[in-house]
Amino acid sequence: MSAGSVLGSPWVPCPEHVAAGGELPAGFRWSGLAGGLKPGGALDLGLVVSERAGTVSAARFCDSGVLAAPVVLTRERCNLAALRAVIVNSGNANAATGEAGLAQAARVQEAAAAALGLHPREVAVASTGVIGVLLPGELIASRAGDLAAALDHDADDFALAIRTTDSLEKRVELTVTLGAGAVRLAAQCKGAGMISPRFATMLCFVQTDASMAAESVDALLGSAVRRSFDRISVDGQLSTNDTVIMLANGASEVRIEPDSDDERDFGDALDALLRTLALRIVADGEGARRVGRVVVRGGGQDAVERVARAVADSPLVKTALYGADPNWGRVAQAVGAALPGSAPLDFAITMGGVAVARNGAAIPFELEALAAAVAAETVLYEIDLPGEGAEAELFFSDLGYEYVRINAEYTT
Amino acid sequence: MSAGSVLGSPWVPCPEHVAAGGELPAGFRWSGLAGGLKPGGALDLGLVVSERAGTVSAARFCDSGVLAAPVVLTRERCNLAALRAVIVNSGNANAATGEAGLAQAARVQEAAAAALGLHPREVAVASTGVIGVLLPGELIASRAGDLAAALDHDADDFALAIRTTDSLEKRVELTVTLGAGAVRLAAQCKGAGMISPRFATMLCFVQTDASMAAESVDALLGSAVRRSFDRISVDGQLSTNDTVIMLANGASEVRIEPDSDDERDFGDALDALLRTLALRIVADGEGARRVGRVVVRGGGQDAVERVARAVADSPLVKTALYGADPNWGRVAQAVGAALPGSAPLDFAITMGGVAVARNGAAIPFELEALAAAVAAETVLYEIDLPGEGAEAELFFSDLGYEYVRINAEYTT
Repeated sequence: MSAGSVLGSPWVPCPEHVAAGGELPAGFRWSGLAGGLKPGGALDLGLVVSERAGTVSAARFCDSGVLAAPVVLTRERCNLAALRAVIVNSGNANAATGEAGLAQAARVQEAAAAALGLHPREVAVASTGVIGVLLPGELIASRAGDLAAALDHDADDFALAIRTTDSLEKRVELTVTLGAGAVRLAAQCKGAGMISPRFATMLCFVQTDASMAAESVDALLGSAVRRSFDRISVDGQLSTNDTVIMLANGASEVRIEPDSDDERDFGDALDALLRTLALRIVADGEGARRVGRVVVRGGGQDAVERVARAVADSPLVKTALYGADPNWGRVAQAVGAALPGSAPLDFAITMGGVAVARNGAAIPFELEALAAAVAAETVLYEIDLPGEGAEAELFFSDLGYEYVRINAEYTT
Repeated sequence: MSAGSVLGSPWVPCPEHVAAGGELPAGFRWSGLAGGLKPGGALDLGLVVSERAGTVSAARFCDSGVLAAPVVLTRERCNLAALRAVIVNSGNANAATGEAGLAQAARVQEAAAAALGLHPREVAVASTGVIGVLLPGELIASRAGDLAAALDHDADDFALAIRTTDSLEKRVELTVTLGAGAVRLAAQCKGAGMISPRFATMLCFVQTDASMAAESVDALLGSAVRRSFDRISVDGQLSTNDTVIMLANGASEVRIEPDSDDERDFGDALDALLRTLALRIVADGEGARRVGRVVVRGGGQDAVERVARAVADSPLVKTALYGADPNWGRVAQAVGAALPGSAPLDFAITMGGVAVARNGAAIPFELEALAAAVAAETVLYEIDLPGEGAEAELFFSDLGYEYVRINAEYTT
């Protein structure tokens, strides 16, 4: 089995010291149950807890002007470097709910802390679902005891409980072999729509039994998020609720020292983990059939970033990707739109390895080769702008009938 | 009949001195024929000519970094204040075609000028269609004589020839009664997808038999374009080919003096004309079922503009509009995404006259009233941000299955 296929994408090579599968990190427990927020008795409440005092943590959130109550509460009232647990609900985002929403989120946090014997500032809260409907905090609080009682060394129910429109599973368990010994690294993630720019409408909970400094966790998580959830787009929409929380509890007794080779190797594993999950979000991008990767190179970081976003978010590029349409002119359109006033622009475009434009103009190419390349499961768009030294990469999903169906019919 | 209904939209009141219908402006002739660029013998070549020497004109183009050859040629080699004719083709945009594309456009321009006995700099060229395929300029040039021979005081074939994926007719004839007398004002327009930001993938040709200074035509056209084609979005995509050209030939012998009441009244008529056509583009937005209008008010022009664009371009808002889904949370999402770092943001949202959020949070409202409002043919989104004095307005189409069908299957 090739290294890439272990993690499920040809675009995420698996480092040699990392093996997929195996056990969950030691010293963590998970649970999930149906609280009635989703219809039909689906799981919608989840809890993940580290059993060990001295657990360190780090978190990242989206930067919307309309931040959901759980994000505000967790950011403002938790000790983000020393979290012990996260209580999560799907079916309701608790966003645009004002002071009342904050009070409901706090009620959930308090109930979970009480059920676990922790201080509220050790318990993060995360929500996902419909915006603008007050969270039934008392209902969730009343189930905190049940969630605590159901805790087990099994993340199945938890992973199910955090999902909304997801159709692909988004959880990965890795064994990371370091100089100091082997550690476990796992994550459960959700996200399919309202994805990008920066980050995603997504929740991701990462656990490791490595022993690490909180500063290491924060630095490695920040770097991995920038290279993963910050680089994907399903529909160019930024959520109100994005949350990534990583807990490291030291249960393996394997210590990762700051600035060591082991820290770098562990960071590579975390990077592969989050990139794998980010790509799975894109592949699951509501109704997605194909995944695109755009790589833009040129002389200015701002220009390459703008062009990459314009291509990844273009509904014309995305519908062409869906239709396996070799219409590269839409890529040229997006490039031009991203850089107004720059005409005549000296750009080059290669799609699926087939060069279609050089020096700002069409060049002869094999239409059959291009048609075959854009009908693959993954399509690489390479764009060169004038100059060199800057590069931007984004992963994006196509836009098809299923996106419309899901989003025209997913209602309040 | 109410003034509004004359022009077809409740959002464009018809000025009292303007009457819809009636004759085309005097002293102009139009033609259209099938040149073989579109399959199936559809009309794809058009010509509009002013018969009178001394005709004045003005033009506006999009500002993409990837400008089509006809835009570059017309901008650089024509006398934009003294155009006499425009030759147009659909079925091929002649964009991203480099020097060869410029040569083909020049060949078309020269052939039209020769057939009409004009100087090439008096003849503008416009193209629309697929990007990245060299225009068959010689083929079009060989039909210039036929186009000239077919010229008539009838714009039907011309209006058909400039269309691509349009399903709604986009031509309006007005009679404008001024103090100095009555003049005729007409326009033929095309556009359905790849619309916005600023302007649209659209072509619009405006004629009047008023006698005006070139400076008046330029100022009035610029102002009307800013309030019409600059304020619409079908899919947030900027084209490579957008072109608006207005000709005023004085055949009515009615003189409009600069800075006169007549100039202001004529400007109001031009404004209503272009807003009507812009709204028809939005209503025709590939597969559109409903039209949205977003009005954002607040304290900073940059903020209200960004929020209006974010709402109008959001695929989540657009699919909800398509599905008549009263899910206002997606509007809140778009507001927050447009203003990162501003949380907690004090915003208010009213949809179809139903207030749903105040002070950044949901308020109680009648769900049935909201559901009825968002199922109407037109839906108004009103958003208030902190502060006052700035306002931005945009018109946008929904996003439905038909947009996907058209764009996944409209291929090279």
